[in-house]
Amino acid sequence: MTDGTLCQSDLGRLVVRCPDQAGIIAAVSGFLFEHGANIVHSDQHSTDPTGGRFFLRIEFALANLEAKLPALRRHFAEVAAIYRMDARFSATPERRRVAIFVSREDHCLIELLWRHGAGEIPAELVCVIGNHPELAGVVSPWSIPFHHVPIDPATKARAEARQEELLAAYRVELVVLARYMQVLSPQFVAAWHGRAINIHHSFLPAFAGARPFHQASVRGVKLIGATAHYVTGELDAGPIIDQDVHRVDHRHDVADLRRISRQIERTVLARAVTWHLEDRVLIDGNRTIVFS
Amino acid sequence: MTDGTLCQSDLGRLVVRCPDQAGIIAAVSGFLFEHGANIVHSDQHSTDPTGGRFFLRIEFALANLEAKLPALRRHFAEVAAIYRMDARFSATPERRRVAIFVSREDHCLIELLWRHGAGEIPAELVCVIGNHPELAGVVSPWSIPFHHVPIDPATKARAEARQEELLAAYRVELVVLARYMQVLSPQFVAAWHGRAINIHHSFLPAFAGARPFHQASVRGVKLIGATAHYVTGELDAGPIIDQDVHRVDHRHDVADLRRISRQIERTVLARAVTWHLEDRVLIDGNRTIVFS
Amino acid sequence: MTDGTLCQSDLGRLVVRCPDQAGIIAAVSGFLFEHGANIVHSDQHSTDPTGGRFFLRIEFALANLEAKLPALRRHFAEVAAIYRMDARFSATPERRRVAIFVSREDHCLIELLWRHGAGEIPAELVCVIGNHPELAGVVSPWSIPFHHVPIDPATKARAEARQEELLAAYRVELVVLARYMQVLSPQFVAAWHGRAINIHHSFLPAFAGARPFHQASVRGVKLIGATAHYVTGELDAGPIIDQDVHRVDHRHDVADLRRISRQIERTVLARAVTWHLEDRVLIDGNRTIVFS
Amino acid sequence: MTDGTLCQSDLGRLVVRCPDQAGIIAAVSGFLFEHGANIVHSDQHSTDPTGGRFFLRIEFALANLEAKLPALRRHFAEVAAIYRMDARFSATPERRRVAIFVSREDHCLIELLWRHGAGEIPAELVCVIGNHPELAGVVSPWSIPFHHVPIDPATKARAEARQEELLAAYRVELVVLARYMQVLSPQFVAAWHGRAINIHHSFLPAFAGARPFHQASVRGVKLIGATAHYVTGELDAGPIIDQDVHRVDHRHDVADLRRISRQIERTVLARAVTWHLEDRVLIDGNRTIVFS
Repeated sequence: MTDGTLCQSDLGRLVVRCPDQAGIIAAVSGFLFEHGANIVHSDQHSTDPTGGRFFLRIEFALANLEAKLPALRRHFAEVAAIYRMDARFSATPERRRVAIFVSREDHCLIELLWRHGAGEIPAELVCVIGNHPELAGVVSPWSIPFHHVPIDPATKARAEARQEELLAAYRVELVVLARYMQVLSPQFVAAWHGRAINIHHSFLPAFAGARPFHQASVRGVKLIGATAHYVTGELDAGPIIDQDVHRVDHRHDVADLRRISRQIERTVLARAVTWHLEDRVLIDGNRTIVFS
Repeated sequence: MTDGTLCQSDLGRLVVRCPDQAGIIAAVSGFLFEHGANIVHSDQHSTDPTGGRFFLRIEFALANLEAKLPALRRHFAEVAAIYRMDARFSATPERRRVAIFVSREDHCLIELLWRHGAGEIPAELVCVIGNHPELAGVVSPWSIPFHHVPIDPATKARAEARQEELLAAYRVELVVLARYMQVLSPQFVAAWHGRAINIHHSFLPAFAGARPFHQASVRGVKLIGATAHYVTGELDAGPIIDQDVHRVDHRHDVADLRRISRQIERTVLARAVTWHLEDRVLIDGNRTIVFS
Repeated sequence: MTDGTLCQSDLGRLVVRCPDQAGIIAAVSGFLFEHGANIVHSDQHSTDPTGGRFFLRIEFALANLEAKLPALRRHFAEVAAIYRMDARFSATPERRRVAIFVSREDHCLIELLWRHGAGEIPAELVCVIGNHPELAGVVSPWSIPFHHVPIDPATKARAEARQEELLAAYRVELVVLARYMQVLSPQFVAAWHGRAINIHHSFLPAFAGARPFHQASVRGVKLIGATAHYVTGELDAGPIIDQDVHRVDHRHDVADLRRISRQIERTVLARAVTWHLEDRVLIDGNRTIVFS
Repeated sequence: MTDGTLCQSDLGRLVVRCPDQAGIIAAVSGFLFEHGANIVHSDQHSTDPTGGRFFLRIEFALANLEAKLPALRRHFAEVAAIYRMDARFSATPERRRVAIFVSREDHCLIELLWRHGAGEIPAELVCVIGNHPELAGVVSPWSIPFHHVPIDPATKARAEARQEELLAAYRVELVVLARYMQVLSPQFVAAWHGRAINIHHSFLPAFAGARPFHQASVRGVKLIGATAHYVTGELDAGPIIDQDVHRVDHRHDVADLRRISRQIERTVLARAVTWHLEDRVLIDGNRTIVFS
């Protein structure tokens, strides 16, 4: 580091994807050094050192980062071109704009609101959209607008148009489906590819689809789980970001599984959202790379 | 307890299944008290207090148990008849006779041999049967006979007859498939219903069937697991006794998943076998009740 | 079971402590059967079958339980006298009255409020008492009174008298210290023995006392934890109800440990409180028996 | 990567410690690139970006590595001098020479033998040294020499001299204390600083010293653990490499805790040894950095 102490506002991130080849790290770290940035943390992954895809995430410190970001991006374009990189610089203090979609269950929503309030989710929660009005009261103490957009089969397309309108108005960058019980249209899913995270109440791929607790109870599994994943066209089949499980036994009926699952769901979803917002999650086909 | 200290040889177990109705515990505990037995531990489960199935496992202490067991069984028949019980008394020091089936992988076998040697598996390991000869050397230091019964499609029926012959000669009461890579015939499976335990190298029902590590890798799951279950006619679909999982990430290739899975498999199988031998596992249709 | 279906209001609990001797379960289960109660679940523990202490917790079903409870208690006194039992009958739907003590940190409080709202904590939350005013806003949406009772060294005795006054006025039966940063007086502790639960932000007995995160960081542990325990005269030394841990590594500084610990604390405290309210926790000297 | 596929023999590691300053990664990665090496994996840690200590571990691929290692080391000396680095290159296939010290308990020894046999511990196990003769039989099937070096207070110094003699004769680079029940002399400890790993049967710093299971039982903890650490002059106080825990309850007596602990100990010790041998563990004062 240079002289003096480090401000939070001087921290930045660089995320890179490109075909793997020798010299990438030397080129990137050389560039950062020349521009006065000190690498604080670095993660990388290659799907195959011979001809695979390469992923890189660097946290760096650079005094007056915000002022220097435009030039940094401009100068880096040269490096990016050589290595055919898809690269993105950001300032760590930047807060991406997040909307939460809900239906009637409150546990994931409350977890996100609390963690956000506690400073653990680096985002701006700009709105909550519910297809039922019930959760407005949960949101109100947090001074975040709640929009009720009711959905029924006849009005589904119109409702989705209204959702899109809200997302545009709020300049939303990430949609979190916090136990949102509606299937999104293929158009919506395509538009939000890699920017919509869902929580599924089973340990996918087991018990995909409806009524996972009944399925789990019938099969007599000894662990139940939850899965946070990016939303894709195929239901419950998108790239998995995080999963966790909890031990159950013969005494747990379907209601118990539901109660236990709520604890897993809210933890897993909150972690997945946080990691996404910290640029730790990189999509690689139908899988994710999650840099810890 | 009555006067004097308690010997391990004075400990017994009673396992009961019957239709649920009021008064079962009063009847059973009254019977034990009248016969001088002290209940040391008791577990019970009812699938539904109104018209369900009832399961009971009691550990009790009774001086000179072994001498008294025949009379105990005879007298209990009366109680059992009233409540339509399927009941079984046993002396805790009894060691059931166990055979282990293996192929080429040694990790589950070694775990069972070590835990048995350490006194953690209350059984007599009477033989190991391998369809390959490789693991004879692993078994030999433990002074347990190893039988090589080779299997190929043409000789499969004859090989299974030889296995049955060995199981009969050794008076085997439990067969443990410790990464045994052959499918057993429907006749064999039926004959050993509830007395043959398999370890599957995935978190069932996810990735049933062949090559679970490839399936897991393709799907990009964040936890992999293993499942110990009773063998039934439908492959990988029998009642689950125990499962566990371990966290994995994008850096783990198929070989890593295999290595990690080995650790889960040996732990889960050893636990399931131990619980079975302690009469903790009661089959209820396609599920199990596992009394801790 | 008898005829008809079972109401939640027909469920009851019996908790018993007494010197161990033969016949206790026969006597208790016989009593319940004679009075028409069906045992739904039962747990027991003996510290030593020869001359130890015996603990029993039974869940039973009995039509019109509430009306029958007084007679049940009266008649059971006879059994209790024979076996020198400390016995307690209760109706499962009864909600004990709980007060939460807080200072400035909100995470445990919010967890308790949410779980209570979700029906997961079988209690009536009658008030929250804070020695700082900050958390009034967190409590207000839940329609539970918040009382600010400031404490400073000079006014400590008066403040505690005010707390006792509130607890009496609200007829509180359990005090939960949800990251309450004041040491209670010996008088208070004695008066609430077995009825005050604290959460400590370390895996006791490691890092008892002040600044556990600094201690953990200096020692370089690889797991940090939290401990819920009954409050006793000796600080951080009361009977442990529950503990849990989370993996940490060299990258976690003291602020990270604090953040991770918050997640453990709120889960562990909520579990301990729930178990206490379900009569699952029995104190045995400086240890607890927790019936699952 | 360059042309062709990658052999295991072409993989190498570079581990670096130095004062933190800007440009280190650029310098190291530039050096590796110039010498034709491709970075496959990289981990780093700074205790403080302004004036702290910097730790770096790089896995790289370089054709014909073994032949090039001497030159690589020689040329790197220049970079190392500039940044005041303590740097070490090694070829991944190199197997360090390991001795295991044991007493009477076999569980950790068997785990190490099995994992080594399964190819999971990248070392050459050159000998086992026991202060009791009992475990010779456990070692013999693995074709590793077992040396019985008895120890009693009177002969302790002579016995340690004999141990040192054996370690020298076998050119041992790492000593693993696999439930070795003797305290080593300060001289021995100093000589093997950072190269002797012990497993302690408690979750340190809780229950350091003797009889941890009795201590845990008396305190009534709900989790017990084990800790692998480097041996230092102060007993049970060396830098922690890994720890893990397992849930226990009131039914577990001291013998149960011992049995459960054995499972934790063998897993934790095997992990710690493997990580050490893969150069993932860097000592930083009394703490460790463990690169995953």
